[in-house]
Amino acid sequence: MKRTSRDIRTANRYEVLRQIIAESPTSRQELAAATGLSLATVATLVGELLDLRMITEVGFEDSAGGRPRGLVAVDASGGALIGVDIAETYVHVELFDLALNVLARADEDMRPGESRPEQVVGHVAAAVGSVVAQAGVEAARVLGVGVSVPGQVDRDTGVAQYAPNWDWHDVPLLGLLAEHIAHPLYLDNPLRACTVAELWCGAARGRGDAVVVNLGTGVGAGLALGGGLHRGVSNSAGEWGHTTLVLDGRLCHCGNHGCVETYVGAPGIMRNLRELDPHSALLHPGDQTATIDALARAVAQDDPVALKVVRDTARYLGAGISDLINLLNPEVVVLSSWVASRLGEPLLGEVRRAVARHALGRPLAATEIVLSPIPTDPVSLGAATFALEGALQFVGQRTSAKRTTAPARSRTAPPS
Amino acid sequence: MKRTSRDIRTANRYEVLRQIIAESPTSRQELAAATGLSLATVATLVGELLDLRMITEVGFEDSAGGRPRGLVAVDASGGALIGVDIAETYVHVELFDLALNVLARADEDMRPGESRPEQVVGHVAAAVGSVVAQAGVEAARVLGVGVSVPGQVDRDTGVAQYAPNWDWHDVPLLGLLAEHIAHPLYLDNPLRACTVAELWCGAARGRGDAVVVNLGTGVGAGLALGGGLHRGVSNSAGEWGHTTLVLDGRLCHCGNHGCVETYVGAPGIMRNLRELDPHSALLHPGDQTATIDALARAVAQDDPVALKVVRDTARYLGAGISDLINLLNPEVVVLSSWVASRLGEPLLGEVRRAVARHALGRPLAATEIVLSPIPTDPVSLGAATFALEGALQFVGQRTSAKRTTAPARSRTAPPS
Ligand SMILES: [Zn+2]
Ligand SMILES: [Zn+2]
Repeated sequence: MKRTSRDIRTANRYEVLRQIIAESPTSRQELAAATGLSLATVATLVGELLDLRMITEVGFEDSAGGRPRGLVAVDASGGALIGVDIAETYVHVELFDLALNVLARADEDMRPGESRPEQVVGHVAAAVGSVVAQAGVEAARVLGVGVSVPGQVDRDTGVAQYAPNWDWHDVPLLGLLAEHIAHPLYLDNPLRACTVAELWCGAARGRGDAVVVNLGTGVGAGLALGGGLHRGVSNSAGEWGHTTLVLDGRLCHCGNHGCVETYVGAPGIMRNLRELDPHSALLHPGDQTATIDALARAVAQDDPVALKVVRDTARYLGAGISDLINLLNPEVVVLSSWVASRLGEPLLGEVRRAVARHALGRPLAATEIVLSPIPTDPVSLGAATFALEGALQFVGQRTSAKRTTAPARSRTAPPS
Repeated sequence: MKRTSRDIRTANRYEVLRQIIAESPTSRQELAAATGLSLATVATLVGELLDLRMITEVGFEDSAGGRPRGLVAVDASGGALIGVDIAETYVHVELFDLALNVLARADEDMRPGESRPEQVVGHVAAAVGSVVAQAGVEAARVLGVGVSVPGQVDRDTGVAQYAPNWDWHDVPLLGLLAEHIAHPLYLDNPLRACTVAELWCGAARGRGDAVVVNLGTGVGAGLALGGGLHRGVSNSAGEWGHTTLVLDGRLCHCGNHGCVETYVGAPGIMRNLRELDPHSALLHPGDQTATIDALARAVAQDDPVALKVVRDTARYLGAGISDLINLLNPEVVVLSSWVASRLGEPLLGEVRRAVARHALGRPLAATEIVLSPIPTDPVSLGAATFALEGALQFVGQRTSAKRTTAPARSRTAPPS
């Protein structure tokens, strides 16, 4: 979408808070240097965040020869954020403080038969109630609840347009949730949640252009370009799993042949294993998690079949990631989601070697490939940051007139 | 790259001038509606462009019930821009007025042996001198000269880092040109020139996200995202020609197998023809232009072999373009450059059909595929717009302080 002045102002507000969360305490001067924004812009945005009580003034530092510089820090207790990760077999919910630390977790298992929207909504409402009670936060302090649901979503209307797990079509999920949850609600999908998680707390933070390659049952590439999530014109960018890697190759559930996902998604990796050794003891038919776990353990023991499967998978993945590098010239490529975290360093090493063989020299030299450094569930973290972004989105409308005329007005004396 | 406040201000300035060039005369209110910028921002940017004499006030229009609205229009004679298209066998130069109309053209042929930088520079200098003389513009009115050279360029230093046509490595092209040309010089490559040409005057103008698919001897995909050119972290984004379409497919000159370019670049199309009919009369070995022209003529006469070649090529192209649509979710895909313009509508029709079979429903529904509407050489036009963008880039530094404090100060009365 075209970026308007308001979009840009909002993106700058995210960028400044992101930097404060990453490094507190910090000064306006340091923030200007880290973000590339002017000191005047930073001062305005810091003023807005102070007014919202998301950050506080925490003292002064001496600057060589100049006036002491005011320091600000995130006010962790200034609000709580909830992230909801709805998956095929479970609902996982986490409650975060404003420094994005996890304060409480709740899990609800869903049995195979439970696929009606009301059932899923019931689990989400129960888990959200649980984390609020566990953390002991007042309802008024919850700034919002971000909800990630697989498939296609319309974030403006809160509708799950198509959820392949349960064959949902146009389910008004946020409307149903609003009957149980009084906080502001935000809807999106796991790919975009993982991508904003990397932007706020992971390997994409402070980077110009990043690609977050999500390796799970499905496969996608979240694009963080120019410091923000690239959504595309109808919020569906990132369908890398259904780009062609092998013309006329393996049949994909999307109806095409040779999609990236059929070679490097968990079922694709199982097929890579089966084609190599149809009777492998590593293969747990019908159980992706058990098979990937078995592969990971076997690789750690230098099992030759497991090593070959990882190498074969990395060969496909390396070709696909090279395409992303050649096309987008990103600063960093992040391998994320459960398949990447379980196969870990051995997969990363093979992928780096495969990419080095495939990618063009110039974009290759400018790119780093890393595993996601986020230690917890990136989907619930990302969903929570959608709620944080939502809370920040309309700030400018209320306060910008005052701020732009008096960006440097004095505040109450900070503690020192 | 991360966007700073200055980048954003510059992009907004481009956007406003682009809109004025597209539709003159126009009011600040119409500009705000068309660009999504606030009226205050538009007023500031219009003030800057008036100061630069790139636009003029041309009268007033009545607004229903309100004050008459001031109208502005591009001042075509306010400056001249020169675009230089350096290709393997020729140098083509055009001089434009500020409305981006061509005022003069000059061509220089280069013989096969002529590949030394001094020889190319000599041809460029001669052609630039010719267009200035033909158009009869004063040297002081030339705002800049944009130069497009194939391959990898460092636009900041003006160095042609690698030009495959002539095996140039790290040639300081702008430095050499500056010995002959006194105007400000800007360097980039044809892919990016074609993309900014679509942004300023073509199918990407006013669109959020656009992909410009360049079909020539080489193949690339220029990305116009969020209203601006996506360059990537080291200015090499767009190397779509070297993304894998057929794993282990045709050998490419980049060293990989199965690159898109080997199937849909002009030499790839010749190979598609040769594989179908090795002795076809349409085949002009060693002459890409003659072969593509013969194909285009034969298609117009419903020649079955030619129709099959176009269909085969469109099948590859459709798979590759579907990948771009799935990954980036653009509003428009533009087919540009000489192969696309010569094969024209028959190729476009087949590509649309192939994409409809391949792409995912949601991004497909949001995308339009069109031929470039630019009737002249898009490379020299795009190179000229680089010069225009260069002239606009540092405006804010000089005038922003004055403007932001007095965006609405009165001007000399416009003619009415
Ligand atoms: Zn698919
Ligand atoms: Zn190649």
